[in-house]
This record gives sequence, C-alpha cells and structure tokens, in this order.
Amino acid sequence: MTGSLVSPATRQRVRDLATPIARALGRLGLTPNALTVIGFLGTCVAAYAAASQAWLAAGVLVLVFGIFDLFDGTLARATGRVTRFGAFLDSTLDRAGEAVVYIGIGVGCLAAGFELGSILAPAALAAAFLVSYTRAKAESLGFGAGSGLANVGLAPREVRVAIIALGLLTAVGSSLDGLTIALGLIAVLATITTIQRILHVRGQSKEG
Amino acid sequence: MTGSLVSPATRQRVRDLATPIARALGRLGLTPNALTVIGFLGTCVAAYAAASQAWLAAGVLVLVFGIFDLFDGTLARATGRVTRFGAFLDSTLDRAGEAVVYIGIGVGCLAAGFELGSILAPAALAAAFLVSYTRAKAESLGFGAGSGLANVGLAPREVRVAIIALGLLTAVGSSLDGLTIALGLIAVLATITTIQRILHVRGQSKEG
Repeated sequence: MTGSLVSPATRQRVRDLATPIARALGRLGLTPNALTVIGFLGTCVAAYAAASQAWLAAGVLVLVFGIFDLFDGTLARATGRVTRFGAFLDSTLDRAGEAVVYIGIGVGCLAAGFELGSILAPAALAAAFLVSYTRAKAESLGFGAGSGLANVGLAPREVRVAIIALGLLTAVGSSLDGLTIALGLIAVLATITTIQRILHVRGQSKEG
Repeated sequence: MTGSLVSPATRQRVRDLATPIARALGRLGLTPNALTVIGFLGTCVAAYAAASQAWLAAGVLVLVFGIFDLFDGTLARATGRVTRFGAFLDSTLDRAGEAVVYIGIGVGCLAAGFELGSILAPAALAAAFLVSYTRAKAESLGFGAGSGLANVGLAPREVRVAIIALGLLTAVGSSLDGLTIALGLIAVLATITTIQRILHVRGQSKEG
C-alpha cells in the first residue's frame, strides 16, 4: 500500500548530486525563492511550447525544469535558509507549473485536432492535483505529520514529470500515441495514488 | 486583501437553515461520510450531464449538489460526529467533484465544437484547485491555523459553484456565451484569490 516507484535512497542520491549545482547557483546571487520562481517561469515556457505543438522542445523543457526544481530546496537546506514560506511557495508554484503544462498540452492537442489528448490532459491535471491536495489536506488536519504521506502512492511528482516528459519526447513524429499513453497513465496512476492516500488516512484515523 | 464575496454572517445563516434538513437526513440512517459520498456521486452525474451537453440539467444538478454539500458537515456538527477523517474526505471529494464537473464541461464544449470552452474549463479547474491547495498547504505548514485562510480571497467554493451553475443555466439556447463568461470569471477570480493567499502567507511569515 505504501510502495512508491521512487525509493527514499534514490531520492537522497539525487539530492547529493544536486547540492554542488545548487550551491553554484547560490553563488550567482540567486536565493532559493528566486530559483522557485525561475523554475515556474521555465515551466510556463515548456507549456507554451506544448501549446504550439513543439512537442520535442516541450519534453526537453519539462525535463530540464523538472530537474531544476530540485535546486531551490537543496540550496535552502545547504545554506540554512529553509523557511516555511519558501516551502509554501515551492509547493504552490510546483502545482501551478504542473497545471500550466497540462493545459498547454491540452491546447496543443486541440490545435492538432487530437480530441482525446485534450480530454486526457485535464483528467491528468485533476488526478495529479488530487495527489498533492490529499497530502497537504491530511497534514493540515494533523495526519501523517512531516513527510508521512509523501511516500504513500505510486505516482509522486518526479514519476509524473518523467512520464509526461517521455510522452512529449515520443511525440516527435505525427503520432501522438506516446503522449496519449503518458496522459492516460498519469490519470490512472494518480487516481490510484489518491485512493491509496485516502485509505492510508482512514487507517491512521482508526489507529488514533 | 482579506475581503470575500461571502460574509461570515451569511455563511452562519445558511448553516442555520441547513441544520433541520441535515438532521432529517441523519434520521434516515445516513452518516455524515455517506452524505459526502452521495454528494460526490451526484456531482459526477452533473458532470455527465455537462459532457452530454445537457446544460440545463447540469446547472440544476451542480446547484442541488452544491447545496447538498452543506449537509455532511452540518449533520456531523449537529450530532457530535465531527472527525478529522470526515473533514479530510469531505474536502478531498469536494475537490474531486469540482474537477469532474470542469472536465465534463470541457468534454461537452468539445463535443459542441466550442474550442474556447474546452480550453477555459481546465484553466478554471486548475485555478480553483490552487485556491484550495494554497489553504491546505499553508495550514499544513502551520500558517493561518484553523480557518485563518478560509476568509482570504474573492472566490471560495460557494462563489465558484454559484458562478458555474449560472453559466450552465444560461447555456440553454445554442449560445455558450454565458458559460464562457462563467469559466473565464472563475479562472480569473480564482487566480487572483491564489495570489491573495500567497501574499497573505508571506505577510504572516514576516510577522512570525
């Protein structure tokens, strides 16, 4: 029930790799919150590319800014500048960025006359949002304190970013089959993750 | 900055009206959580109506189940059965229901050959979700404890339900202008609300 497609060990290894780059960005004078905002703006460019059916560019940008998103938190931790507002801004703009990408993909699919994609994109958006919402709401009510719920569920953000980037990168030709599969996969995995989290919270509430 | 289109006094008056009905539903043997699930399923029917371009039916159902949503919490409070899991389930299924309605509207617009609507629907969905997410995330981080953030912002859920229901009800003829305005209005108001909440949290973090 609590399995994820990304292990905590992998997560830690990625963080270790990100630290020197994050510190270098910090030495350029960038604050963690500035990195958060730059990452969001970059993601908006990715969404614009998708809306323009520049699928390859969109895929590369989603991947680049998906990785870039590691640096704000890493820099904050490495330089002792972790703040609650920083965490709030990071999470909120992560959600906004993810939403903008799916909307961009929906617009691109519509422009390409690919109706299924423009229906699956908002479905993936909604399901992905519910995954994040369940965690935030549960924690606001005192469930799964700290990162308790973060490890519950198959499709956390990094998995979703990888799937959608792959889907975009396979859309280079005229076929959007890969993108369809990616959007459908995210919608299904994220819905399952949401159900897993609801059941996890119900289990916690019965223990308490 | 903290103005809402619904005053706390109005909110209380509506709750007072809802109490006898909620108690009556309770006497039928329905639990607060059962009412939450019934409300979600009803909202799914509304979404199906919208997807089928049965706009009038969709508008009526959105309104009916928007009001129905008052009864779970009211029954829980009136009978001393307020639980953290109940609050979590209610909030999560409210989000899921709202998402399903916008997806249904998007599908209906697409089927009607009304592309603008099928782009605005996911935009309204994303913006509405961000309003709820910012509150849950801020509270999970210890900001705006209790209902602190609930009164921040122009477009809380009841306002969004009223706008979208009106938009659907005006779509009876062949014109979808009212629905377009409703979707655009929600996207704009909810985006402003999200920005209001981010600034509110930043203000709180500077005080702390």
